[in-house]
Amino acid sequence: MEHLRIDREKTAARIAQDIETLSGPAHTRDAVAIRRYAYTPEYAATIAYFTRELEAIGFTVEQDPVGTLVARNVPKGAPAFGIGSHSDSNRNGGKWDGTLGVVMALEICRLNQELSLGLPLVLISFLEEEGSGFGQMLLGSRIVAGRTTEQAMKGTIRELDTGRSFWETAQAAGYQPERWREPKEILDGLIGWIEPHIEQARVLQDTENRIGIVNAIAGYVHADIHVHGRDDHAGATPMNFRLDPTTVLAECILELERLAIEEGHATVGTVGEIEVHPSLINAIARSVRFSLDIRGPRDASYIGVFERISAFAHAAAAKRGMTVEVVERQRNPATPMDTRIVAALEAAAAATGAPVLTMHSGAAHDTMCVADTVPTAMVFVPCKDGLSHTPLEDAKPEDAALSVEAILNAIRALV
Amino acid sequence: MEHLRIDREKTAARIAQDIETLSGPAHTRDAVAIRRYAYTPEYAATIAYFTRELEAIGFTVEQDPVGTLVARNVPKGAPAFGIGSHSDSNRNGGKWDGTLGVVMALEICRLNQELSLGLPLVLISFLEEEGSGFGQMLLGSRIVAGRTTEQAMKGTIRELDTGRSFWETAQAAGYQPERWREPKEILDGLIGWIEPHIEQARVLQDTENRIGIVNAIAGYVHADIHVHGRDDHAGATPMNFRLDPTTVLAECILELERLAIEEGHATVGTVGEIEVHPSLINAIARSVRFSLDIRGPRDASYIGVFERISAFAHAAAAKRGMTVEVVERQRNPATPMDTRIVAALEAAAAATGAPVLTMHSGAAHDTMCVADTVPTAMVFVPCKDGLSHTPLEDAKPEDAALSVEAILNAIRALV
Repeated sequence: MEHLRIDREKTAARIAQDIETLSGPAHTRDAVAIRRYAYTPEYAATIAYFTRELEAIGFTVEQDPVGTLVARNVPKGAPAFGIGSHSDSNRNGGKWDGTLGVVMALEICRLNQELSLGLPLVLISFLEEEGSGFGQMLLGSRIVAGRTTEQAMKGTIRELDTGRSFWETAQAAGYQPERWREPKEILDGLIGWIEPHIEQARVLQDTENRIGIVNAIAGYVHADIHVHGRDDHAGATPMNFRLDPTTVLAECILELERLAIEEGHATVGTVGEIEVHPSLINAIARSVRFSLDIRGPRDASYIGVFERISAFAHAAAAKRGMTVEVVERQRNPATPMDTRIVAALEAAAAATGAPVLTMHSGAAHDTMCVADTVPTAMVFVPCKDGLSHTPLEDAKPEDAALSVEAILNAIRALV
Repeated sequence: MEHLRIDREKTAARIAQDIETLSGPAHTRDAVAIRRYAYTPEYAATIAYFTRELEAIGFTVEQDPVGTLVARNVPKGAPAFGIGSHSDSNRNGGKWDGTLGVVMALEICRLNQELSLGLPLVLISFLEEEGSGFGQMLLGSRIVAGRTTEQAMKGTIRELDTGRSFWETAQAAGYQPERWREPKEILDGLIGWIEPHIEQARVLQDTENRIGIVNAIAGYVHADIHVHGRDDHAGATPMNFRLDPTTVLAECILELERLAIEEGHATVGTVGEIEVHPSLINAIARSVRFSLDIRGPRDASYIGVFERISAFAHAAAAKRGMTVEVVERQRNPATPMDTRIVAALEAAAAATGAPVLTMHSGAAHDTMCVADTVPTAMVFVPCKDGLSHTPLEDAKPEDAALSVEAILNAIRALV
C-alpha cells in the first residue's frame, strides 16, 4: 500500500486550533493551569466539544454508563480500529497531556472523512486518567478493564474536593454507575488500538526525533529501604565508632545506578525520597528511609535489579554493623505492545521522512488497560524539555501532524 | 609527691546523693527530664544548694553580676586553682550533663577540707551553658570571656519562653547586666582550671576506660552543600539522560568518610541533614541540600578535609553535568588544653590504677572560654552508650570518684 501524505500544515493548524479552544476559560477551572476532571462543568464542556466535532463528521457519539466518551463511524460491536486518549488534566496541568491524543484521534477521523478513506474507527476519550478528581489513576480505563470493584467505587474512591463517593458523584452527574460492568463493551469489535500522547520525557527532544513508536509500557516496583543506625554526637564520635546509616544510603544510591546501567534493557532506578532522622547538623543519623522506583519494559530486568539492590542493601548494612528493612509498596508488570501494530507504525512513520525512535513508555497510560483484550500500541509526540503536569507543558502541532500521518497510514495497513 | 588515695566509696556515695537531690522536683520543671535554665526558680534552687554546701565547708560564695556562681576559699584575686562546670540543663536533659562537673568540684572542695589539704580553690558554676533559656550556648562563659556584646544582650539574645531580652530578664531576676564587664574578674588569680564532665560519647565505655583526660577541644566547620540537578520523570528518563543530584550526594557522603579517616588526627565528618526536592518516589530530584559537620582537635586537619570535600563536590557534580554551592555556616578553631595540666592529670589518673584514655573533646564546653586567659584541661567521666541531652543520660558515681581522686592529686601537684 502506498504511503498517503496528508496536508500536514492544515492538520497542524486544526490541531493547534483544537488545543487553543480547549485551553479557554470554559474548559479549565484555573486561570493559569489546565484543571479539569470528571463530572465538572469544564470537563462536560470538553466532552461536548468533541461530541459536536465528531457528530459533524458523521460519527455516532455516546458516553458509557460512567462517562467515557465513545464515538463510532460503524455500528456498535462491528470490527473497527480504536484511537484516543483522555481529556481530563491533573490539577496543575498543561494543554497537551491526554487532550492532544484525543485531538489527534479527532483529526484522524476528520481526515478519514475528508479523504474518503472509509476506515472503520472508534474514538475513545477515557474518563479520569489523571486521578485529579478522585485520586485514582486510570480510573475510566480500569472500569472498562474490570480492574476495580463496586465496593471501591462506593467506598474508598471518593471525590477529593467533597469526600463524596465516586458512585454517588457519578449518579448526581446523571450517570449510571450501577451499570459499571457495561463499559467493557466499548472495546467490543476493536481489532487494534493506538493511543497518541506527549512523551512526558526528553528523549525525543534530546535525540532530535519527531515521532516515538512505543513498543512497551514499563512495569515497576515501588519500595522503601529503611536503614537502622545509631544516633551519636557528630563531634564526639570517632569515625570507627559510628553506625551512620547515611553511608549505607550512599552506597545504595550508587549501586542502584550501577545495577540499572549494567542490566540495560532500558531499566531505570531512582531514589526520589530521602528522609533522615533526626536530621540535625551535629548528630549522626539514627535512621534513614529512602524510596526506590525501579522500572523497565522487561519484567525480568527491573525485578532483577530490585532483588539485587535489596540484597546489596542488606549486605552493605551488615558489613557496617547495621540492619535494613526493604518494604515493597507496589508492583505492576510491564505491558508489551502488539508487534504487528508496532511494525505497521514503524513503517508508516519511516515513510513520513521524519526521524523516528522506537522506545518504551516509562509512564503509565490507559492503553495498559486496553491491552488486556485488544492489540495495542502508542505513539509519542515530543514535548519541550520533557515537562508535563505543569502549565509549562509544550509541544509542536507540526510534530503531532507527522504522527497523525503515521497513525493514519498504519491503520490503513492494518484494517 | 605521693599519690593520695581517697575513700572512693564515700565520695561516690556523696556524689550519688548530690545528683539525686538535684534531680528532685524542686530542681527541674519537667516530671521526666531535667529542665532548668537561667533565672528560673529551679535554677535558683540549684545554685542555692551549692551555696549552702560550700558555705558549710568555709567557702565564700557569690554570684557574678549576671548570675555565674563563684565560691572561694581564698581572698578574691589571690592565686588559686579553678574547678567547675555548669548546672543548667538542656530542655529535655538528664541528671549528669554539667551538674556532675559542679558536684565533683564540690566534692573536691569537701575533700580538701576533710583531709586538711589546704589547696587554694575557686569553684565556678557557669550560667546558661546549654542555651536552653536564651538559645545561646556557653552564654555565661562567653560573658566572662568578653565574647559577647551589650548590644546582643539587649537585642538578639532573648528568653525563648517570653521573647524578653536577656538584659531585661537578668534585671528582673535581680542581677545587674549593666556590670557585664566585671565577670571576667572571676578568673583573676587562677593558675589553672579543670572542668570535669560526662563524655557525651561512647569512646570511654566501648574502650573500657574509666577516666578520660582531655588534651584538646575540637574546632569545627559547619556548612551546607546544595547540589543542583534536574527533576525528570523517574520512569520515562533513561539513566544516561539524568542529572540526578542524589548521586552527587552519595559520592560526597562516601568521600567525606574516606577523607576524614585518611586525614586521621581524630578528624570526623558527618552528613546529618539531607533535604531532597521535590521528594517524590516517581521523580528524579531537582536539588539536594546536605549539611557538613567537620571537626577535630587539629585545625589544619578538619579545615583541610572541609576544603577537600568542597573541591570534590564541585568536581563530582561537574563530571555529571551538575553544579554545587558550598555555603559555610560557622567556623570555630580548636582549643588545645595546657600540656602541664594534662600531664599532671595523666600522672594522677594513672596512679589511681584505673584504665585511663587521653582524648579530645568533640563537643564544646565552657572551658573553651576559660582557656582564653587561664591554662586549662578537662576530665571526662564515661557515660552510658554516649547518651546525653536526654533523660536516659546515665553515669557511674564510682567512675566520678576515680576522676575526683585524679583531679585532686593533679591540683596538689600543680599548686
